Amino acid sequence: MRCEIVAIGTELLLGNILNTNAKYLSEKLAELGIDLYYQTVVGDNLSRVSDTFRKAMERSDIVIATGGLGPTDDDLTKEGLCHALNIGMSVHEQTLAKIESFFKSINRPMAECNKKQAYIPEGAQIIENNNGTAPGILLKAKAKLFVLLPGPPNELYPMFENSVYPYLKGNAKYLLKSRMLRIVSVGESTVQEQLKDIFDNQTNPTIAPYAKSGEVHLRITAKAESEDLADVMINEMESKVRNILGDNIYGCDQESLEAVVIKLLQNKNKTISLAESCTGGLISQRLTSVPGASKCFMNGIVTYSNEAKQKFLGVNEATLRKHGAVSSETAYEMAEGIRKVSGTDIGLSITGIAGPDGGTAEKPVGLCYIGISYDEKVETYKLMFGGNREKIRWNSSIKALDIVRRIII
Amino acid sequence: MRCEIVAIGTELLLGNILNTNAKYLSEKLAELGIDLYYQTVVGDNLSRVSDTFRKAMERSDIVIATGGLGPTDDDLTKEGLCHALNIGMSVHEQTLAKIESFFKSINRPMAECNKKQAYIPEGAQIIENNNGTAPGILLKAKAKLFVLLPGPPNELYPMFENSVYPYLKGNAKYLLKSRMLRIVSVGESTVQEQLKDIFDNQTNPTIAPYAKSGEVHLRITAKAESEDLADVMINEMESKVRNILGDNIYGCDQESLEAVVIKLLQNKNKTISLAESCTGGLISQRLTSVPGASKCFMNGIVTYSNEAKQKFLGVNEATLRKHGAVSSETAYEMAEGIRKVSGTDIGLSITGIAGPDGGTAEKPVGLCYIGISYDEKVETYKLMFGGNREKIRWNSSIKALDIVRRIII
Repeated sequence: MRCEIVAIGTELLLGNILNTNAKYLSEKLAELGIDLYYQTVVGDNLSRVSDTFRKAMERSDIVIATGGLGPTDDDLTKEGLCHALNIGMSVHEQTLAKIESFFKSINRPMAECNKKQAYIPEGAQIIENNNGTAPGILLKAKAKLFVLLPGPPNELYPMFENSVYPYLKGNAKYLLKSRMLRIVSVGESTVQEQLKDIFDNQTNPTIAPYAKSGEVHLRITAKAESEDLADVMINEMESKVRNILGDNIYGCDQESLEAVVIKLLQNKNKTISLAESCTGGLISQRLTSVPGASKCFMNGIVTYSNEAKQKFLGVNEATLRKHGAVSSETAYEMAEGIRKVSGTDIGLSITGIAGPDGGTAEKPVGLCYIGISYDEKVETYKLMFGGNREKIRWNSSIKALDIVRRIII
Repeated sequence: MRCEIVAIGTELLLGNILNTNAKYLSEKLAELGIDLYYQTVVGDNLSRVSDTFRKAMERSDIVIATGGLGPTDDDLTKEGLCHALNIGMSVHEQTLAKIESFFKSINRPMAECNKKQAYIPEGAQIIENNNGTAPGILLKAKAKLFVLLPGPPNELYPMFENSVYPYLKGNAKYLLKSRMLRIVSVGESTVQEQLKDIFDNQTNPTIAPYAKSGEVHLRITAKAESEDLADVMINEMESKVRNILGDNIYGCDQESLEAVVIKLLQNKNKTISLAESCTGGLISQRLTSVPGASKCFMNGIVTYSNEAKQKFLGVNEATLRKHGAVSSETAYEMAEGIRKVSGTDIGLSITGIAGPDGGTAEKPVGLCYIGISYDEKVETYKLMFGGNREKIRWNSSIKALDIVRRIII
């Protein structure tokens, strides 16, 4: 069963709105185990809408269209489909009555154009719309299934959920289930190489890597007759992948790196404090974005100037003079200082050159030192990050959070 | 000139991600006055990718593809295009050298598969990628223009803006020019109401409001024969709008609120320090994301606990006991304290309840106090924000930055 989604609306082609309907429907179809091969967006133009339906029915079994069911002249979805199938339309009396009574109920005269919404293609069934005047349309023709849904998400979502989803589920044999593994410290190409044997031999479940800013996400998707069976298949694949990638996998699905760090801190009953220079509060902000962070995040200080590093963290003036603010020695004293002044289990520091200015041959833009004070010791890390200011700050915040994560594990 | 956008990636068909690239490109093409007739999404499958290119070149003059340029086996965009055009690929030596030196610079071994990114279709030019390893591709073939762009938005946006946009603009007959006015403190519907007369009578330039998180952006677009003429038309419309919205307009185009605040501080030779509670470093992070912020941003302290508020900012224990951490009195002392301890011209403080927990009937989630100490005084503001933790933190950071902006003006 191959499906495709056709979204109709010039506002999508002008970039005025995001095609959230396509994402929503795609997710639901994946859940149902229905293969989706294409999404198309076309404007409010009769010949292009009918061309799009023609192409879609050539290559797919199910065509789900969104938008263009309203009362105005640029609502052309039903017209386009009828054109493509070479069939006519007729009025659906109950729908007409419902629209008329709706206008009566709100005490407004019904503009003539509203009648348009009560016309349906020959042989079609309507799908009740409890949140608007335009009904959805279900039509079987030429051995294909056509489902026309209204564009507004508050009409489309309940209509799909209540009527279309159960209908398609009754006809589906398999379901698809996915899990996303979240990976740090290695790039997409390394993941690909390390998992080469699995990639080469994958059939079901399938795996696919996605490069995210500073991270890699690996999707595992199983096709099975039941959800339980899909879980078993995914678990088996996950443990194969974990055997290879180990601790580089930090979380699953929607879990962010900062949420994982906060959870670990809470579980181990540890507290943390932060001294940030180049990241300017980014790491504090990420950690405190997690609900409940206040239980383990004590405080963070953004010490941009040398004076602030001395005053708040007790960094030695001699250290700054001899080694500079961006140095292993300064990171060391910052980590120790913030931990001491805050009385936390862990003190994390970061100092670097985020650019675009401030780099030298010896200390280029992208150079970054991270310090971490815990138990009886302080460790420092020297790192180089590529890209612009935003990327350097973001990737160094990932590295710093990952260092904390690995130490707590 | 008819254009279409082809997005390549199974993750789009699975509904894992939104097709934000298509929206972005659609908006830009509209700005350029290039007609966009179709957007298509296709998965990582060679024959379907090449079918899609074949169909696209049949009906359009320009085909812009996104995604599938990376190093892994499921990156098939160039292969699909070559297949559709029946041409080969060859290695682009400079690109290969650049990729190799990138891996050297970050001290990581280059996985063999990365070489794939240096292969380009016969007759194609590369488009430099300053934010990743995969270059973009520009190819004229069969009287059509093909533009292949990387999928990650942080690579696609600058590549399009710096290289593709100017290229397409040079080939356009008439031009559309836009300016975006950035507005705080009033919502979209208020903007719509206040500008009702302008909205009702717009022809050229046109104006359109966009609701952004916590802000409203108002696009003014003029269609003209020359850039100078467009500028004159836009300036005229802008001053009409400014007469009505006044200081609620904080900036233009890409200028962020934080960048405007940093620029104002620099121009007036003022310094600032921050004491954040509920925003957890978000405001510091926003200000320091602006290149050159170190000249006026001295330091920021994230004082999550009462102890930290006393220790670092000198907030009175009695104040915290009597009024609580989330109170006008505490915001007052935090602002005064951070300014004093940092020796800056301005001290900004924020304390509130971001949720989801911690709210009471008297002090609900979303309650927030902002304090600002400057010249001889301290002002405090009591505010209520709706939404979830993320939204409360974000919108309160906007309000705090806006308070600083209005005081410096």
